[in-house]
Amino acid sequence: MPRYKLTLEYHGAPFVGWQRQREGVSVQGCLEDALAHFDPAPGPVQGAGRTDAGVHATGQVAHVDLARAWAPFRLTEALNAHLRPHPIAVLGAEAVPETFHARFDARLRTYRYRILIRRAPLALEAGLAWQVRHPLDVAAMAAAARHFEGHHDFSAFRAAQCQAASAFKTLDRFVTAEKNHPNGDHEVVFEIEARSFLHNQVRSMVGTLERIGAGKYPVNRLIQALKSGERRLCGPVAPPQGLTLTNVQYISEIL
Amino acid sequence: MPRYKLTLEYHGAPFVGWQRQREGVSVQGCLEDALAHFDPAPGPVQGAGRTDAGVHATGQVAHVDLARAWAPFRLTEALNAHLRPHPIAVLGAEAVPETFHARFDARLRTYRYRILIRRAPLALEAGLAWQVRHPLDVAAMAAAARHFEGHHDFSAFRAAQCQAASAFKTLDRFVTAEKNHPNGDHEVVFEIEARSFLHNQVRSMVGTLERIGAGKYPVNRLIQALKSGERRLCGPVAPPQGLTLTNVQYISEIL
Repeated sequence: MPRYKLTLEYHGAPFVGWQRQREGVSVQGCLEDALAHFDPAPGPVQGAGRTDAGVHATGQVAHVDLARAWAPFRLTEALNAHLRPHPIAVLGAEAVPETFHARFDARLRTYRYRILIRRAPLALEAGLAWQVRHPLDVAAMAAAARHFEGHHDFSAFRAAQCQAASAFKTLDRFVTAEKNHPNGDHEVVFEIEARSFLHNQVRSMVGTLERIGAGKYPVNRLIQALKSGERRLCGPVAPPQGLTLTNVQYISEIL
Repeated sequence: MPRYKLTLEYHGAPFVGWQRQREGVSVQGCLEDALAHFDPAPGPVQGAGRTDAGVHATGQVAHVDLARAWAPFRLTEALNAHLRPHPIAVLGAEAVPETFHARFDARLRTYRYRILIRRAPLALEAGLAWQVRHPLDVAAMAAAARHFEGHHDFSAFRAAQCQAASAFKTLDRFVTAEKNHPNGDHEVVFEIEARSFLHNQVRSMVGTLERIGAGKYPVNRLIQALKSGERRLCGPVAPPQGLTLTNVQYISEIL
């Protein structure tokens, strides 16, 4: 059975998340249903990142085994046709060796988190950012974010239901950018890269940074959370609509 | 009656356009209805740009006379509360002299037009850009766009129903930017500035540039259209969802 690598974009709002669940519409489920329309025996679709309900993707990667050999362009077009009207788009497909695994072979995952600081409701970008209605000290957040970089025990920054055996992870990059839009909007964008993440890790880190930016937590609380692994020191988990999985890289691409 | 200047953002999709019409929901109508909820006798809302159905705004400006004097912050908050669930947001309000006119006093209007070049449907930015499925020669479009700058007869680039007395306009700026997104998306963004525009002028110019980028029109056709004013030389009018009114400037702000 030939194996294909798919690059995917989706809007997280209508889904229970990446993973197929007993109830609700999942991204994985939509892809498997679409494939079943034209391939006689598609295998399960394996995603690189199991994004939560409401989380978006512009560069999710998945793999799937199909019964027939498809020209990548035709596979992409057929999938996009059968995915309608779900907000999922296949940006590309390629044939890969049957040893390729979208999840286990991924070497670098990139997430972006957007905060829009303003009081007025989001008319144009509703659902595409976390709206914060109070001022934030972005310089303080940017400085604090640097503490996440490197090898740490992220026990304080993971969901109770996280199933990873170890909470030790290496964050390669946690960069803060600030944008001032002509209409007065003030935007904070975090870009976060690591080989892998714990469940809710990015949103827990961003939630903690927001509390620091709001002047509610001293930066020392973040440092203590990293040292002690105590969940109670972590801020509230930031909402999913600010988060986007933007890129997944594999050994062959990094070399 | 005190006069207020409002700065507005809206998503164009659900509206018949800025202007109140006999049928359908308009941005102007929603604002007037919202004002009537808390002010005893609001005047008509006058907008700087009468955007068409489907066209967005991040920096539309309007003025309105109210029966009562409102603190700008309270006016903004009350309007945003009563505008729900329409995708219209009041970004700011300020008291202005009763001689201020949002439309007639505007000295510079800025529009942005976004084209996303890709085959896959837009999952994340559906309705926020014009999707073009064939390749475009962006360098050729950028060079051609420069011909629009300056003082010209734009008769070829206006709607049949345009009511302006003269088709002579001065375009201060027509700049093309190209963005390559990490997921392979290829984006073209035009930024266009003038004191005022004819009806459908921006979308007519962008439609002509798209034909040039696709290799269907020589740049000479655009030059001839500007010289002759012949509408048949203009390309198809580009769709509204790519267009956003981003800024309106007044004498006091330019000086």
